[in-house]
Order: sequence, then structure tokens, then C-alpha cells
Amino acid sequence: MWGCVTDFFTYETTKSVVVKSWSVGIINRVVQLVIISYFVGWVFIHEKAYQVTENSVESSVMTKVKGFGYQNNYVMDVADYVIPQQGAAIFCILTKVIITENQFQGTCPEYSNKYRCDQDKDCLQHIGNILSNGVITGVCLNSTIGNETVGRCESEGWCPAENDNVEVKPMLNVINFTIFIKNSVRFPLFDVTRGNFLSTMSRDEIRKCNYHPVDSPFCPIFNVGDILNYTNQDLETLANKGGEIGINVQWKCNLDYDIENCVPRYSFTRLDKPFEKNAISNGYNFRFAKYYMTENGTEFRTLHKAYAIRFDVMVTGKAGKFDTIPTLINLVAAFTSVGLGTVLCDLILLNCLKGAEQYKAKKFEEVSDAQIEASLAHSPVSQLSLKGGIKSSYDSGAISLATSDQAM
Amino acid sequence: MWGCVTDFFTYETTKSVVVKSWSVGIINRVVQLVIISYFVGWVFIHEKAYQVTENSVESSVMTKVKGFGYQNNYVMDVADYVIPQQGAAIFCILTKVIITENQFQGTCPEYSNKYRCDQDKDCLQHIGNILSNGVITGVCLNSTIGNETVGRCESEGWCPAENDNVEVKPMLNVINFTIFIKNSVRFPLFDVTRGNFLSTMSRDEIRKCNYHPVDSPFCPIFNVGDILNYTNQDLETLANKGGEIGINVQWKCNLDYDIENCVPRYSFTRLDKPFEKNAISNGYNFRFAKYYMTENGTEFRTLHKAYAIRFDVMVTGKAGKFDTIPTLINLVAAFTSVGLGTVLCDLILLNCLKGAEQYKAKKFEEVSDAQIEASLAHSPVSQLSLKGGIKSSYDSGAISLATSDQAM
Amino acid sequence: MWGCVTDFFTYETTKSVVVKSWSVGIINRVVQLVIISYFVGWVFIHEKAYQVTENSVESSVMTKVKGFGYQNNYVMDVADYVIPQQGAAIFCILTKVIITENQFQGTCPEYSNKYRCDQDKDCLQHIGNILSNGVITGVCLNSTIGNETVGRCESEGWCPAENDNVEVKPMLNVINFTIFIKNSVRFPLFDVTRGNFLSTMSRDEIRKCNYHPVDSPFCPIFNVGDILNYTNQDLETLANKGGEIGINVQWKCNLDYDIENCVPRYSFTRLDKPFEKNAISNGYNFRFAKYYMTENGTEFRTLHKAYAIRFDVMVTGKAGKFDTIPTLINLVAAFTSVGLGTVLCDLILLNCLKGAEQYKAKKFEEVSDAQIEASLAHSPVSQLSLKGGIKSSYDSGAISLATSDQAM
Repeated sequence: MWGCVTDFFTYETTKSVVVKSWSVGIINRVVQLVIISYFVGWVFIHEKAYQVTENSVESSVMTKVKGFGYQNNYVMDVADYVIPQQGAAIFCILTKVIITENQFQGTCPEYSNKYRCDQDKDCLQHIGNILSNGVITGVCLNSTIGNETVGRCESEGWCPAENDNVEVKPMLNVINFTIFIKNSVRFPLFDVTRGNFLSTMSRDEIRKCNYHPVDSPFCPIFNVGDILNYTNQDLETLANKGGEIGINVQWKCNLDYDIENCVPRYSFTRLDKPFEKNAISNGYNFRFAKYYMTENGTEFRTLHKAYAIRFDVMVTGKAGKFDTIPTLINLVAAFTSVGLGTVLCDLILLNCLKGAEQYKAKKFEEVSDAQIEASLAHSPVSQLSLKGGIKSSYDSGAISLATSDQAM
Repeated sequence: MWGCVTDFFTYETTKSVVVKSWSVGIINRVVQLVIISYFVGWVFIHEKAYQVTENSVESSVMTKVKGFGYQNNYVMDVADYVIPQQGAAIFCILTKVIITENQFQGTCPEYSNKYRCDQDKDCLQHIGNILSNGVITGVCLNSTIGNETVGRCESEGWCPAENDNVEVKPMLNVINFTIFIKNSVRFPLFDVTRGNFLSTMSRDEIRKCNYHPVDSPFCPIFNVGDILNYTNQDLETLANKGGEIGINVQWKCNLDYDIENCVPRYSFTRLDKPFEKNAISNGYNFRFAKYYMTENGTEFRTLHKAYAIRFDVMVTGKAGKFDTIPTLINLVAAFTSVGLGTVLCDLILLNCLKGAEQYKAKKFEEVSDAQIEASLAHSPVSQLSLKGGIKSSYDSGAISLATSDQAM
Repeated sequence: MWGCVTDFFTYETTKSVVVKSWSVGIINRVVQLVIISYFVGWVFIHEKAYQVTENSVESSVMTKVKGFGYQNNYVMDVADYVIPQQGAAIFCILTKVIITENQFQGTCPEYSNKYRCDQDKDCLQHIGNILSNGVITGVCLNSTIGNETVGRCESEGWCPAENDNVEVKPMLNVINFTIFIKNSVRFPLFDVTRGNFLSTMSRDEIRKCNYHPVDSPFCPIFNVGDILNYTNQDLETLANKGGEIGINVQWKCNLDYDIENCVPRYSFTRLDKPFEKNAISNGYNFRFAKYYMTENGTEFRTLHKAYAIRFDVMVTGKAGKFDTIPTLINLVAAFTSVGLGTVLCDLILLNCLKGAEQYKAKKFEEVSDAQIEASLAHSPVSQLSLKGGIKSSYDSGAISLATSDQAM
């Protein structure tokens, strides 16, 4: 029993060979220095491997657009040109609207030349077409466009059919509009909540400011013209064809520092850029209708084909804070890596250096099956001597060392 | 001083015992092989532990629906049946609409049998009810439904009350509709932007294609009928009761390869599946109103109870790219794990093998407090001899080895 | 050849010094115990380092509001006060609406005192202002407000201009409204799908329940009044000025347990809290318009300035499941850390203990360039003896041990 206890409270450490050689010594320390510098400089300081990081962020975005623009001789205000109106993170500013007024349910000829016909059978091929203005009935109608009378296939649906080939002036005033963004984020792992205004900004400061990447990087009011500049967009093209612009709010917070340093950074991109090579769907448009009712209760509508600039406010966040687990795992990796340096040094020591054989003899002690069997086959005296050897190993070593000392 | 420098540039390596035994040798190598195979095959090749991965993705989705359907004898087009109309990532296609026309503010009897009454006090229990059509006043009204006159509780609000028990034919044409999805993603960590069309697809190719998981996996136009098939949905049930369908766009990119290999994969799920066991709220419907005004300025509305198929385009992304930190940490883990193999071999060597005692004697040198104390109690000569022993250890070893050699 | 094979199947283990000392032995075991407890208790049990975790979750949210409220003597129902109406994850309940009726395009005087003027030049400063009701023309108009005639700058746009300084009673009934939330989540890494109702809840149970953090934590129906309580909001202030409230649905699932334990937890926050210090934009409001047409086809609109409570249903999820890679890496880190304990013990053993020099002599064998060179300069006999020494190291050791034994 007591033997077990004493056996348990022993301490086992590896026996080491200390090589006093300048060449290997310097290589060893240089390798260690390189490994330590890498871990300290890159892993710990640059990549902050001592932190636990949170990539997912809870975010809430509220937007508000201000400005007036002219469209079809109307003065458009926010309630007219922003869709949806409730200040969402993704919103559209209508820049060009093609209006088809007074559409009633019924049948009428299609507008596009694609649907030109001489007789009914010319229209049969178009049945089931989903790019028309309504359901193609398969009948060819005489239609007066301008002062010319031509045949056009009949379609059933909202009539008259839309003619979206008209020239409409886009609302270029959009460059003067401002977008106000209110964004609050929360990192659930750390339970940290931040807003995108500096707490030092007063109400008036915020109201009058205008975002600028250098001069005013924390102002939450963005001028549309500026955004177009940052993304290298041409106003007229964009207003004419529509487009998608991303406003990225990036939170990169080191929570080991003061929380006031956890501030957003804004960047702007043209979102349909990856599609430049494909000519399709360049731009952004959609259709919506306003519904009215005649005195006698018949519904009619005004169809709007709206070209719009869509703004996507996208919030990404990353927060890091000191945590023992990654620190420990990386520290262990660092220590072990320093240890791995000996692998390289051993290779050099045991193969490339003068006297490699001697080093090998020092480092390795060999024992083979044959020897063990031979020793087992010996007299029990030998067995005993071995056992004794274990117990008195220190003495024997000391003595043999002393002996050898004297032998010199 | 110089002593410190020479001491610093020493190289310390562990002294090893080399066991030339077939049994342990083979076990050792097999264990090492298993550990190395695991790391190479699973950790590095399969799980790509040499990469840093990014799970959060910035995504922008634009959708466009095309097609015509019949509802209540009207031809419905996109502006009629898609809500919201601006091409959002989450959109509804109305498949059945129960219309209550010409609602004015006022009081009227409730419709449902639940509100049947004979006298006012029968209605008191319903006061505060939020499932009625308006605020229950507590009055019992005589109401003519069909050609029968029955008592119904009075409610205040938009009148007449909605009767949503009518049979309305759903818009089955929805199966012919197509959904066009434009999705651009960005992995902020790697600053990689991708769009969901192949850059090799021309405008016409995209326009005419139709998504098919095998034949045309990168076509961004989806047929609603196909989606219903992929999710095993019955058209009529879905159109009648509404439902939620998820269109998942999954980006799984290995950025160590060519960026053109970073393509989306589409999958489709019925989102309300987890609720199958609960009978409640199977399906999807909501109410909205269109507002009109009479000549004399009184507002009235048409209430729509809309059953809709809601499509949620959900984008998930994961990108990986070679990075030194995970590579290093996993390499260190791999090397150290190979080292841990010796723990197993030591157990076998020192306990199970014939000659275990001899191996123990070889592996372990023992030193105990008693010996140290004994040696400290010796003459200072012994101290000296020990010190000398350290300095001349190599010689002594060489000589003792030589001696033993001769002794053989 | 055969020599290579035998060389390959050798087993190399470190030679160890076993120190039988109570002090170091106990320190060694205590350090090991501390390290092991840390890894078992904190890293593995508390932080679940044996799991791979997924932080990004695919989520679909459907909401439905119920209740009736009075506003401007109208009974408002869901179709009136919820925007957007389709049951989105982010929705607004209008609590106060300032209505400006019968707006036609034209010119009219501004309303606010800010635009008071005596002559046209007083208005020039306001040209380009985006906070007005329309485009300031630079003309000063006489305007009758109440029974007083004052000068106001003229603006072009929708007329008459909005007067948003009127007192409107907010819809306090909002506290009785209920919000039903249907949320399905999917963890793509594990392909696990969950819904926010317990599968054991029946249709009637769900319909009649009311969320309570303790009594009914899984009920998906939330009373607005309760939510205001949980977030410490004052109903009247909130209804008057609007506000943003976050409903957080948190999924924290340990998928090593039964999937039925993977349930949501709800929490509620006031989202505009981080902006408290900045007085700006406290509250939440937006403008929208309803469009009408006169008999002769002129469009007019009713402008609504809506104060609303915006609810953001935000879903976050984290799921963990046993996985070999993190387990292995952390196990290796644990084992290696236990090994790092020897660093501390070696420091104590070799520096602080009585007999440290003896321990050093035991632990370290020294070999220097000088010795190697000396041995290389010896007769080839010495070389041979060394080589012999390697091959017969066991014997020599045994003998030297035996010798030393006898020497005692």
C-alpha cells in the first residue's frame, strides 16, 4: 500500500543530452527565435489568437430618406419614391417610372412588334407566353398605333397594354437626396450592444453632418451623390436603368479595449458587379400598381414600371475578446512548435556534423530482443544484479563517473 | 559573462532508448501509420483543416416572377399577385384571395355562427375578443343571411364583416410561373464576390433556360411547378391553404481552387414542415386592404384575405482558403499525436513484453531523496567527483563503454 | 536491405529519470491535477470543446398580429395598422397616424414657423432645403392659419402642406394586441430542422396560450403589453413617439442530447437603447400615402405620418455536436499541457531543491565539441570501441551497473 503511494508521488523527467557545440547551439536558438517570433508576432499580436471571436451579429437597421425630385412633372417626396416606406434595411428609390394609366380588365392588342400578325394563326405560337402583357388569346386584332393600322395579337388582362418603350426623363435630383441610417448591433456571445452614432455626437451635430470617409467617418447621413461617386457609378445610367448598391456597415471590435473604440466602418459597392459579364438584367426594375375604383364600382389601376436604385444596408460584425481556451490551445501549440525545432536540430546534429556518430552514441542507447533474451538466460544472479542496478542506479552512475574521472 | 553565452548556445536533446524488438517496433509503426493516416486523410484532406473558413456571407437577392393567372375572373399579373412587389428575397405569390368589397366604417353583425345570439347578454362574453371582425359592442342584431333571419352580435369596425367561408377557386396557373433569382454574395474575410450566373452564360442562354438539378444546375430561372415537385407538394392543397417554401442557395467555395469553381447549389424545402405535428397554422395567409374614396370623401376599402405561397430565398455560404495558423496548429496536433503513440507502446513494452523488467531498467534511471542526501553527506570529494562527472561525462561514457566492450 | 527493414521497425522511447522525492512528486501531481481539472471541468464539460459548433442558422419567420384599436375615431384592424401586411419578421404596428387629406400637386405655403417670411428674399435661404414639405420656390405667400394671416414661403409639391404639430391620440389599445410567431430554423451543418412549437402542444393549446417566461416559455403567442413590461417601456411614450423592439429567438442546441431538447428561448430588448445618449431620432416614424383619383382622373393622396412600434424578430442559433477533430485537437492540447507541467517541476527540481546539482548531473549528460574532436583524434581503436559501444550498449550498461553494484 505505502509502496503504491510512494510510487505515485514520484516525478519523471526526461534524461537529456546537452550538446555544447557552437554550430548546433546557434542553429537551435535561431530556429527557436524564428518560431517564437512567428507565434508572438503573427499568431498572437496580428491574428489575435488569444481571443475568442464572434462572427454572427444581431443587427437592426432603420433608414430614412430625405429629398425632393421631379418626375413626370410631379414633385415626388419620400412617400412617393421610396418603397417600402417603413424605413427598412433594403429600400428602393424610384428614379424613373413608366406609367400606364387607366387599365381595366378586358382584351386588347399587344403593343410590341413581336406580336405583329396578319391572321389568327400567327398568334397561336405566342399562346402561353409569359413575357406578354396578358394572356394571349390567339386572335389577331387590328390595332391603330400612331396613325398606322397594323395587326397585333390580342391579349386578355389589364388593358390597354403597357408600352415601356417610351422615353421618360429619370429623376436626376436623386443625387441630392440623403440617407440616414440608424443601426444597432449586438454581439450575443459578449452581450455587447452598440449603435452607429458616437455617444459624443449631439443631436445637432448628427442632423447637420454629412458622411465623409476621412473627415466625418461616423456621420450616419449619406448623400446619394457621394455614394455614387464612391462606387464609380454614372448617375444618368443608374437612374435610367436602375441598379443595386450595397452599403456595408462593418463592425470590427476588439472588446479588450474600451468599448468606445467599437465603431462602424462604412463601405459601398455596386452589388450587380458580378453580373457585368452577363448582359442580362443589368439594372433593376419592377412593376407595381395603384388601384382605383370608378363611381359604379369597377376597379381599374395605374401600372407603374419603376426603375429604381436599390440600397441594401448590410451589416457584418466581428468581435474578439480575450479568452483562456484559445489562448491556452495556441500557447500549447507555440510551446510544442518550439519543441519541434529539436527535430530539425537532431537531423543536423546526427547527420551533418562532424562527429555525428559520437553524438548518436550519446543520444541513443540501444537494446535488442537478443540482449534481453541473453540476459534472461543468464543466472539468477544477473537478474538480481539488474534489480540492484535499478535501485542503486544513482550510486553506480556517480561511481562510474567518478571512476572515469579518475581514469582520465 | 562568456560562460553565460556559451551556456546559452547549447543544444539540449532528449536521450533516447532504441528498442530493437520486432513486436514493439511493428506496433509502434502501425500506431504511427494509423495516426498519420487519420490526420492526412480525414483532418487535412477531408475536413480541410489547413484552411481558414468563413461562414458568414454578405448576400443580396433580387427576384422577379413572371406569369399570368386567373383569379375571380380577373387576369392577374405580377403587379397583382406578388407582394411585396420590389423583388425582395422573401416574396409571396397570392394563390387565393377572398375579397370583401365596399367596407365602410360602422357597425354591423358578425358573420360567423360563433357570434349567434338571441339577446344582448349573449354577446357580452365576446367583448374583447380579438378573433372577430371588429370590436364587439355587446348588442345582438337581427341579421339576414341568405333568406334566413338570425341574431348575430354587433361589431364595430369595417362593415360588412368578412365571410371567409366562401369557396374560391385558387389560381392553379401558378405552376407555370417562373421565378428569376439574381444573387450576389461576398465573403468579407477573403474579399471575394460572386454572382449566381456562370460567367460563360450569354444573355439569351439565361433567358431561355430552366433550372434542372442535373441538366441545368446553374440556371437562375425556376419553374414554380418544378419547385413543388422537388418539395413533394400538392399544388391544389398548397394553392388553397398557402404555404412557405424555402429556396436555399448554398455557396461552398474552396478558394484554393479557381474562383470559377465557386458556384451556388440550389435546394428546396417546405419551411413549415417542423410544424406538421401541430395542426395549427398550417398554411399561410394574411389580410390586406385596398383603400378607395367616394365622391364625397368617405374612405372605404376592399379587404383581401390572401392565401399565398411564400418563397424565402435563403443564402448560406462557406468559403475556405489555405491559412498558416490552422495549418500550423493542426500540424502540431498531428505531430504531437504521433508522439502520443509512444504512450501506448511504452505501456506494452514495459508491462506486456517478455523482459519488461529489463526494458524498465533501461528506460528509467532512478534517483531518490535518500541517495541525494547520502551523496550530500559524503566527503566534498564526492561533490567534486560529481561536478567533474558532469563536465567529462562524454569521456567517462566512452571509456566505460570501451571497458564493457573489452569485458565481453 | 534487411538492415534497413530492421532499423525501421525499431521503437524509440525517451530515457527518463525517475525522481523519488516527496516534495517534487507532490508538486508534480498537484500541477497535473490542476491542469487536468481545468481541461476536464472547463474546456471539456463547460465549454464543450469536444463539439463542433455551428453559429449560422437558416431561419424563416412568419408573424401574425391580432387585435383592434381606435385611431381618429376609426376602428383599425390588422389590415390597417400592420405594415408590411404579409407577416414578415420585421413589422410595424402603427400607433399614431397624422393624416393630411386631399393633397393635390401644386403650390402652397409651408406650415412651419421656420418658413415665416415677409418678402420673397426671406425665402431664398430655404431653397434646396430637404426638410420642407416640397420644393421651396423662393416666393413668399400670405397664408391664413387659424384666423391669422402671416407670410409663409411657397413650396411646390403635394398641397396642402402637412402640419405634423397636431395633437393626435395614440392607439393605446395596442397593449391588448397579440403577436403570433412561427419560426423554423435549420442548422445546415447538421441538417437539423426545428420549429418553435413543442411537438407535444396541440392546436388548441397553442391558440389559447400566452407566452410567459416561466409558466409558458414555449408559447408562440406574445401579448404586446407583456413585451412592453419585459423591456420596461412606457406605453404612452412608445405609442406617441414610436420605437423599435427586438424579439430575440435564441436557439442553443446541444445535438448530443435528444433533439426535443433543442428549444427556443425568447428575449426582448429595446433596440434604440444604444442611441439614448444622442437625442436624435428617438422613436420611430415614417410617411406613406394612399392614392386616390378624382372623377376626372386627377390623382390625389392622403399623406400619413405614422408613428409605429417596430418589432424585429431576430433569430440566432448555435448548435454543437460531438466531432472528432476538435476533440482530438483539444485532447492533444490537454495531454501536452500536462506535459508542460514538467517544465515547472524541472525548474523547482534543478534550482530550488536541496541536491539540485545532483539532480542536474542525473538529468543532463553533457557532450562538447572539444570532447568529440578529442575522441575523433584518438586511435581508430577508439572509433571502433564507440561503434561497438552502440551495438552492445545494453550489455555494457548491465555490466557497468553490476560492477558498480559490486563496488558498493
